[in-house]
Amino acid sequence: MRACYNVLTTGAILLTLMLSQFAMAQTKPRARDLGIPFEGTPGPLNAITDVKGVEVGHTTLISGTGKLEVGKGPVRTGVTAIIPRGKNSLDQVFAAWFALNGNGEMTGTTWVEESGFLEGPIMITNTHSVGVARDAVIAWRVKHNMMPQPWALPVVAETWDGWLNDSNGFHVKPEHVFAALDNAKSGPVAEGNVGGTGMICHGFKGGIGTSSRKLDEKSGGYVVGVLAQCNHGGRQQLHIAGVPVGLEMTDEILKKEDTGSIIVVVATDAPLLPHQLKRLVRRVSMGLARNGSVAGNGSGDIFIAFSTANPEAAKSSGVAKLDMLANESMNALFSATVQAVEETIVNAMIAAETMIGIDDHKAIAIPHKLLQRILKKYNRLIETSNKK
Amino acid sequence: MRACYNVLTTGAILLTLMLSQFAMAQTKPRARDLGIPFEGTPGPLNAITDVKGVEVGHTTLISGTGKLEVGKGPVRTGVTAIIPRGKNSLDQVFAAWFALNGNGEMTGTTWVEESGFLEGPIMITNTHSVGVARDAVIAWRVKHNMMPQPWALPVVAETWDGWLNDSNGFHVKPEHVFAALDNAKSGPVAEGNVGGTGMICHGFKGGIGTSSRKLDEKSGGYVVGVLAQCNHGGRQQLHIAGVPVGLEMTDEILKKEDTGSIIVVVATDAPLLPHQLKRLVRRVSMGLARNGSVAGNGSGDIFIAFSTANPEAAKSSGVAKLDMLANESMNALFSATVQAVEETIVNAMIAAETMIGIDDHKAIAIPHKLLQRILKKYNRLIETSNKK
Amino acid sequence: MRACYNVLTTGAILLTLMLSQFAMAQTKPRARDLGIPFEGTPGPLNAITDVKGVEVGHTTLISGTGKLEVGKGPVRTGVTAIIPRGKNSLDQVFAAWFALNGNGEMTGTTWVEESGFLEGPIMITNTHSVGVARDAVIAWRVKHNMMPQPWALPVVAETWDGWLNDSNGFHVKPEHVFAALDNAKSGPVAEGNVGGTGMICHGFKGGIGTSSRKLDEKSGGYVVGVLAQCNHGGRQQLHIAGVPVGLEMTDEILKKEDTGSIIVVVATDAPLLPHQLKRLVRRVSMGLARNGSVAGNGSGDIFIAFSTANPEAAKSSGVAKLDMLANESMNALFSATVQAVEETIVNAMIAAETMIGIDDHKAIAIPHKLLQRILKKYNRLIETSNKK
Amino acid sequence: MRACYNVLTTGAILLTLMLSQFAMAQTKPRARDLGIPFEGTPGPLNAITDVKGVEVGHTTLISGTGKLEVGKGPVRTGVTAIIPRGKNSLDQVFAAWFALNGNGEMTGTTWVEESGFLEGPIMITNTHSVGVARDAVIAWRVKHNMMPQPWALPVVAETWDGWLNDSNGFHVKPEHVFAALDNAKSGPVAEGNVGGTGMICHGFKGGIGTSSRKLDEKSGGYVVGVLAQCNHGGRQQLHIAGVPVGLEMTDEILKKEDTGSIIVVVATDAPLLPHQLKRLVRRVSMGLARNGSVAGNGSGDIFIAFSTANPEAAKSSGVAKLDMLANESMNALFSATVQAVEETIVNAMIAAETMIGIDDHKAIAIPHKLLQRILKKYNRLIETSNKK
Repeated sequence: MRACYNVLTTGAILLTLMLSQFAMAQTKPRARDLGIPFEGTPGPLNAITDVKGVEVGHTTLISGTGKLEVGKGPVRTGVTAIIPRGKNSLDQVFAAWFALNGNGEMTGTTWVEESGFLEGPIMITNTHSVGVARDAVIAWRVKHNMMPQPWALPVVAETWDGWLNDSNGFHVKPEHVFAALDNAKSGPVAEGNVGGTGMICHGFKGGIGTSSRKLDEKSGGYVVGVLAQCNHGGRQQLHIAGVPVGLEMTDEILKKEDTGSIIVVVATDAPLLPHQLKRLVRRVSMGLARNGSVAGNGSGDIFIAFSTANPEAAKSSGVAKLDMLANESMNALFSATVQAVEETIVNAMIAAETMIGIDDHKAIAIPHKLLQRILKKYNRLIETSNKK
Repeated sequence: MRACYNVLTTGAILLTLMLSQFAMAQTKPRARDLGIPFEGTPGPLNAITDVKGVEVGHTTLISGTGKLEVGKGPVRTGVTAIIPRGKNSLDQVFAAWFALNGNGEMTGTTWVEESGFLEGPIMITNTHSVGVARDAVIAWRVKHNMMPQPWALPVVAETWDGWLNDSNGFHVKPEHVFAALDNAKSGPVAEGNVGGTGMICHGFKGGIGTSSRKLDEKSGGYVVGVLAQCNHGGRQQLHIAGVPVGLEMTDEILKKEDTGSIIVVVATDAPLLPHQLKRLVRRVSMGLARNGSVAGNGSGDIFIAFSTANPEAAKSSGVAKLDMLANESMNALFSATVQAVEETIVNAMIAAETMIGIDDHKAIAIPHKLLQRILKKYNRLIETSNKK
Repeated sequence: MRACYNVLTTGAILLTLMLSQFAMAQTKPRARDLGIPFEGTPGPLNAITDVKGVEVGHTTLISGTGKLEVGKGPVRTGVTAIIPRGKNSLDQVFAAWFALNGNGEMTGTTWVEESGFLEGPIMITNTHSVGVARDAVIAWRVKHNMMPQPWALPVVAETWDGWLNDSNGFHVKPEHVFAALDNAKSGPVAEGNVGGTGMICHGFKGGIGTSSRKLDEKSGGYVVGVLAQCNHGGRQQLHIAGVPVGLEMTDEILKKEDTGSIIVVVATDAPLLPHQLKRLVRRVSMGLARNGSVAGNGSGDIFIAFSTANPEAAKSSGVAKLDMLANESMNALFSATVQAVEETIVNAMIAAETMIGIDDHKAIAIPHKLLQRILKKYNRLIETSNKK
Repeated sequence: MRACYNVLTTGAILLTLMLSQFAMAQTKPRARDLGIPFEGTPGPLNAITDVKGVEVGHTTLISGTGKLEVGKGPVRTGVTAIIPRGKNSLDQVFAAWFALNGNGEMTGTTWVEESGFLEGPIMITNTHSVGVARDAVIAWRVKHNMMPQPWALPVVAETWDGWLNDSNGFHVKPEHVFAALDNAKSGPVAEGNVGGTGMICHGFKGGIGTSSRKLDEKSGGYVVGVLAQCNHGGRQQLHIAGVPVGLEMTDEILKKEDTGSIIVVVATDAPLLPHQLKRLVRRVSMGLARNGSVAGNGSGDIFIAFSTANPEAAKSSGVAKLDMLANESMNALFSATVQAVEETIVNAMIAAETMIGIDDHKAIAIPHKLLQRILKKYNRLIETSNKK
């Protein structure tokens, strides 16, 4: 990330960081690597892409430094695409959504609620680029002949990046949306300052995080994967692993109020119906709570969950054959969701790096070593050889 | 019904009308018999029991005349049981509910909403007897070893009968609830002054109504059955077959405001999931609207729908195999629901007979011949040999 | 409209019809002028603008004829702006929304639901232009210094015009959105083929309609105004004034299924809180039902209501003083809403004129004289000197 | 509580513990007394009764020991009444509710949701006594001339006590409901094994808990009070003060699954409208999450919040004058709610004492000293002279 930072301080080059960051994702420590304890067992990637078929792509836009000139920059924004069955599939997935605090936007949810289906990708961007991303998804689908019906109702969510980014400059363009979609892939997912890059979480630099849980075989062996764009929470509220670390990290506090937002996407391969996914997605709130959030008034805490099971569900007429997991077997999925959300948020913060944006606003990364010291003070640090 | 009326005027005998009224259901004219036009094709019984497996039982309590003495009477109340798969089945059904105007009670809906399932019967009674009916359903299930879990959350709904009935006398007892359940059966369903008998609808005597629609084969051949306890609507609002008949029926108006309530139960054998049943049940509002209701502030207009398909859905663990009708194939079901609700309400009014209750309050039956004359004036009467 | 039709058949000129159509609105007959009976008393304009402060602006885009070339046309689309307190006010209004059938989009509803407030205008356009309209509203607000907070969550709704319009050509541009906002005004509201002009309603040419009701003084003297973009309903379902006219209008049927959409905006000056507006907006369903709709699967039937009372409600901190109408006084508002919605839809159809769009698709206007003949047959025509 | 335990082991005396337990509430240590750290500042009583006007009454039924004989006992149940403005007031309060996991019952919520008002008390009892409590509330109100309308829709909630109590014996009678109402009072609130006494929480003996928060003056000085009937959560999930204490308390585990239920009542004197109370009540989920719950499938986690402000709101007609707190000023209330819920649950467990019920089932109280040792191990124990 050093190179990127140089770009920030020296030039106004529009930089799409996708490929480089995939590489970086392998080498940067994640929350577990630092010895932070979490409950449950993650999948191999500890990422939403542990759910088979799910693809993720980011377009990250970083250019300019110094004083804000609306329309020119500095630019610290972007867009992330999550595609449930991969970018070549037309098949819908069962889905459901929930707003813990709806000071935000997620388009397309009215039809998700009504039909039980999500069709096409989920996009996450900044607040003022939801529209361009939405229409661009339609254009991309038209271009790729992925319009089973003549109209589409894309799902696009947002958090606000205007403390670091020239948000009123509308820098996200259709081609950036296309790029996020075209480059979406399975495998490791870049975290931190990617996609809508200018995010702030619990008073530190935030951004994209991901995590997953793999259930044991007696619970069905299902996978729950989570991806979030983390821009929420106050510093003083921050708990990690149950420890009120925010109260002991008092330097460079940006804001005290819980005024940001968080978009959370939950994927699973468990065969859940829409009303069961609604149950699952409601548990995201409890993951946020574990890290100390109370979902402040200014926060757009909006969540969506989907299941990649039942690929044949979305028949256009007649009767489809489905699988449904018993309600009585959902507890392990509830736990997995809460746990993975908790870890996702911490992963986002651990991966994020200090960023300077408009008017030299500076969002510092959470200091890893200080965090470890505080956890150790509360006997909550796992001593490992991986930690840096 | 003449005999019943005699009972009313001569004695205080507690009379359970169930059996006699099943017989009467065959001989009294229903709305269609009078030449009132409705859209769509009903099932053989034109009743909720056209949906295979559904059983209905009523307990009707009529005793006393004259001045109200709380706790003594006069009594004009009762209870109705609708059992989705029949009274010997433990199998749950997918279900969903909707409140158009929630000035009323339907217990058990929180678990219906959460789980997607309805377990056990739906009971309808008067407002102040919901509690006794609810606990009695548990007692009945315990007695019959129908407790797959050690607790139960019965569905009991109500409309208010206190203009005719000693509502604060709490005359419904557990044995009346047991009787409605024990006597539930398939076949024709008694309408009018049965079950919670003291109801008033659009300013005339109301009560229980039922109707059904049978889809054609290309729409899947499914059946939609409706049963309602009709206690809602103002006289002036009343439309029948699109004709504003209420404005031309100005005698003996009880009340102008739309202050009563209506409980509607929709049954279908179409394989709908809970979120699809939610779509269906929302259409009940549109059936009420066809008869002129605007769902007044005082009205408890609460609806529940269930599907008898997928008998194996409610497994207690693991994965169940299901059928699901495509959303794109639901339009015929939507039409059927709206149509059957419209006819159900008119059936309730046509079947109801003039009743005198507490303090000699008198609710007159809608005058059949006047209704026919008005419909004829608007060219909306079907001339048939059946009409009386 | 003759001139416009010439344009359609002869050229590819981009024509903004706003001003001319305001003039036309005065001279074209409306539903009442034809002798169609409606319940209730309208305000002076029989339009949403009878609610003081409400402003409406349309941008209508019509160009090209003949075969579809995506990106070139023919173009039959546009955008409508409804501004609750007028375009110079920052003050929020209490609001609530409801989806009868959510096969559509209305952005911004998550924050309306959470906060109880609507901030800024409501825009209505075609399905594939929701995004551009949304971001353009932000740009317009930024330009006019109307951003009390640094972010905004605009409300933009849609219906699909792709049977007449080059919907995948994305012809609505930010300047068209600005124009609708800049030209918004009080006074008469153009109806029919304006705004998102390529709409079809109950199998005839549809579009924008409006109506209002004025309550009598004992009900508070409040006004309810309605505006809708009507693109819903099947021909056979169409009822007008309770008469099943659709069954008797069998020429040039476009489609039988209830697959379109309708966006309805309800304005009132009654002091309703958000939860009371939710009650009001749910009644819109009942207005649709009166015209025969069953809210088909493909229909985006999405409604929003706001109150212009309580201008001081949206304080940014501390305690605001409010008025609230008693729930017990809402019945007249419920009736007014149902009645005004019913008339709005008929107004849209009566005002709309036959349109030829892409690939020479032709949507015919409902034939006024035939409609009158059918209503007369059912004794439901008011004989007046106004009718044509 | 020693005396009570003797009763349990020696006799079958029906014992109403109300008065004695009010006394005991003063002398038993509460969670804070043990040195458990919580965030925020409680009111003087650290109880829901810190909100002025709120009254609480319990009826506790304990009799019999040994083997279950349905209808005879052993009995370990009861009922709790929470009366928003005290038992002599007819005035309604603004209210809202939320189901985090709806495997439970709270009657009356449909009208709360519709009207925005709660009328009368909130009752909490066992699952199989909801009905008797509901109808008894009506009878009590009729008796006391507290029926502003001729019907009532009481709010009654439940959790299941059948592991300790003869739940199918229906031991709660109307007189027990009357007693809870008649004895309701302000002041300290008895916690632990009172009201529906047979509850189990996170694998230990549970029951009633309460707590409150007092906002500082710049946040308005408002009070948030919470009362809960705690019967939820698994042992292994239990976190206290962020420490995963459940994993280290492995003796006498009753059940691992999160299968119980919790009813939470939130009271405040802040002038919140119904839609704002809905925001508040949704935060209860986050308090549960802090103690480790994931809201298991079998759990009825149902919450209701009310505001005692605006005593004149519930006018029966016309326009009422109201106060409304700005949305932007709600964050302190959100924090207070989450904090008070967290403490309430721990208070319930700390106050509860080991109970032996049907078939000698034994629910042990959480061991205070072990808990303190574990918290100390994680540097989360406040060393005070109060702790025992």
